[in-house]
Amino acid sequence: MLSDARLTAVLERLDTDDAADLLGKLPEERLDRLLRRASPEVRRNVAGLLTYPEDSAGGIMKTEVATAPATSTVRDVVDYIRKRADDFHDVNDVFVADAQRRLVGRVPLRALLLYDEDAVLADFMEPEPVSVEVDVDQEEVARMFEKYDLLALPVVDALGRVVGRITVDDIVDVIAEEATEDILKLAGVGEESIATGGPLQAVRSRLPWLAFNFVTAALSAFIIAQFEETIAEVAIAAALMTVISALAGNAGTQTMTVLVRGIALGEATGADTRRLLLREGMASFISGALLGLSSALIVYVWRGDLRLAFVMGLALLINLQVSAAVGTLVPLLLRGLGLDPAVSSSVLVTAATDWGGFFVFLGLLTLML
Amino acid sequence: MLSDARLTAVLERLDTDDAADLLGKLPEERLDRLLRRASPEVRRNVAGLLTYPEDSAGGIMKTEVATAPATSTVRDVVDYIRKRADDFHDVNDVFVADAQRRLVGRVPLRALLLYDEDAVLADFMEPEPVSVEVDVDQEEVARMFEKYDLLALPVVDALGRVVGRITVDDIVDVIAEEATEDILKLAGVGEESIATGGPLQAVRSRLPWLAFNFVTAALSAFIIAQFEETIAEVAIAAALMTVISALAGNAGTQTMTVLVRGIALGEATGADTRRLLLREGMASFISGALLGLSSALIVYVWRGDLRLAFVMGLALLINLQVSAAVGTLVPLLLRGLGLDPAVSSSVLVTAATDWGGFFVFLGLLTLML
Repeated sequence: MLSDARLTAVLERLDTDDAADLLGKLPEERLDRLLRRASPEVRRNVAGLLTYPEDSAGGIMKTEVATAPATSTVRDVVDYIRKRADDFHDVNDVFVADAQRRLVGRVPLRALLLYDEDAVLADFMEPEPVSVEVDVDQEEVARMFEKYDLLALPVVDALGRVVGRITVDDIVDVIAEEATEDILKLAGVGEESIATGGPLQAVRSRLPWLAFNFVTAALSAFIIAQFEETIAEVAIAAALMTVISALAGNAGTQTMTVLVRGIALGEATGADTRRLLLREGMASFISGALLGLSSALIVYVWRGDLRLAFVMGLALLINLQVSAAVGTLVPLLLRGLGLDPAVSSSVLVTAATDWGGFFVFLGLLTLML
Repeated sequence: MLSDARLTAVLERLDTDDAADLLGKLPEERLDRLLRRASPEVRRNVAGLLTYPEDSAGGIMKTEVATAPATSTVRDVVDYIRKRADDFHDVNDVFVADAQRRLVGRVPLRALLLYDEDAVLADFMEPEPVSVEVDVDQEEVARMFEKYDLLALPVVDALGRVVGRITVDDIVDVIAEEATEDILKLAGVGEESIATGGPLQAVRSRLPWLAFNFVTAALSAFIIAQFEETIAEVAIAAALMTVISALAGNAGTQTMTVLVRGIALGEATGADTRRLLLREGMASFISGALLGLSSALIVYVWRGDLRLAFVMGLALLINLQVSAAVGTLVPLLLRGLGLDPAVSSSVLVTAATDWGGFFVFLGLLTLML
């Protein structure tokens, strides 16, 4: 472990956002000790950053930001940047602010090369640039970068005053991070990385969903147990019902995945619900009819039992409708409740399609006996 | 649809990479017609870009690139940029090239503000900057941006000559795109978007995996059918075996997902195979022991049958080992074969865990009868 003195020296050299990230990972006691040792500048900037949630615009911004009044000349700004060259090593924009530090414009450094030394920022700045408030979620910030093709985004407080900037290299990390989070959540895995962590950490991040799945599977078993007599009479039903639950589970997972990703990318809006339900319903009707007919035919050829073939085909058709409904409604419902749709993971969807699959198939078969 | 004249006018104003993307989406006949109408400059640049695969560095680069010899002064470069201000509207770096146009250095525009007009690039350029060859895959390019926190990356041909640059705003799109591709593939869905496309398109992108799943499920049914007599005798076995296959399927999907994402992020290297197998094996042994004991207990309390409880617990323990092995080996094997591990989708893993689950449980039960 680095000594306090070494770590303080490192902190003084880091950008404020990286310094805050590093400090945020330390135990509170050590954090306090280090902040006391740090220069007043680092203390003020970094301690301020630590008060924002890690996943918000404030949590990922840097406080090294180049601002200038609209009345400055190109010469003024160049002098200012030369004086603080170290702080501004990755600055590509100067933000123009009024007397209250409120954001009024943006000047890319490139523009400073194109204009005369005496040109005034007000004459060529981009007025009212895109900005973001400190408390906006990083996922939303990433979407703004994608939408506007930004390299840097000024961060403002509730009064519109410039307090920092977010650079695109940090957004690149955010996007990869959020996608990883969604992928793992969909599979019912908590925060986990492949590179680090031993077996115990893997168990901890996965056992909760497995335990939840244990309960849903027990419920499936309970549903099947209600039809014990039917199965004792037609034992092959035990084989056929697993085909139905497997197909319905996969179809439901497909639907859910397309929806969850669409929601994460901001493609699905509230008004889409009816259209999506209709599309998924029709798609699953087509798949269900094709797969239902094929399976009925195979069962008839295999067992020569017309009744069993009919139950098989009809149950498969019905259950693909169940998958479409579950796969569509669960993510939309979770979003409506303000929850992350990615947690409507495969476990939830396959549980529902299993219950439906076993109940419909065994129920129909019992009726036909 | 835009007329050829309007579209040509649009093309002249677009950056070369966007123009190439647009043209790549048109039917070949119209593409030829438009290229004939375009200015010689657009024709040369854009037609060149169209020869690179869409997913390669060459396919996503722009050809508007600011290059200068190492002997240039700051004044030379500023004059050059002023002359081509339109082409360089998003340029933040000047690439320094030798007489053969080979890349030898990089100067951020910011540096031009810091040095005197007479300073020579060779004195303050960053020598041997990171670059990428035209034929490198875009996923690898995105990884370089993440690793080096780049805003722009020069693209060179096989001889090291600068031919273009990739900007980070395009990489932001690539990262989101690649993550979406992986998420959809994991669920067995082809290229599909939630916003567009009707039910027929949804069926087309999903039916292939459902059909494949139909075959694997039929194989499961065939395995179960071999134990028809056992099931006729112990009908409750039909209920219990579904618990085992559900849990093993989910555990396998969890393992596979962590691995596939790790591989996509470049975290899992070849040397990790043994460590990963060991970790997954141990993790699934712990989960298997916990879940196996609980289920054995529940079965005993529910049915009062010690033999059935023993078979249940042991089969669950064994099958979680099968999931760990399948979930780890399938992605690693696919990568070893040079295939995309993301296509080892849930369908493949749950198929294998279903077969294992039904066979082990019913096999053990038959032996104990």
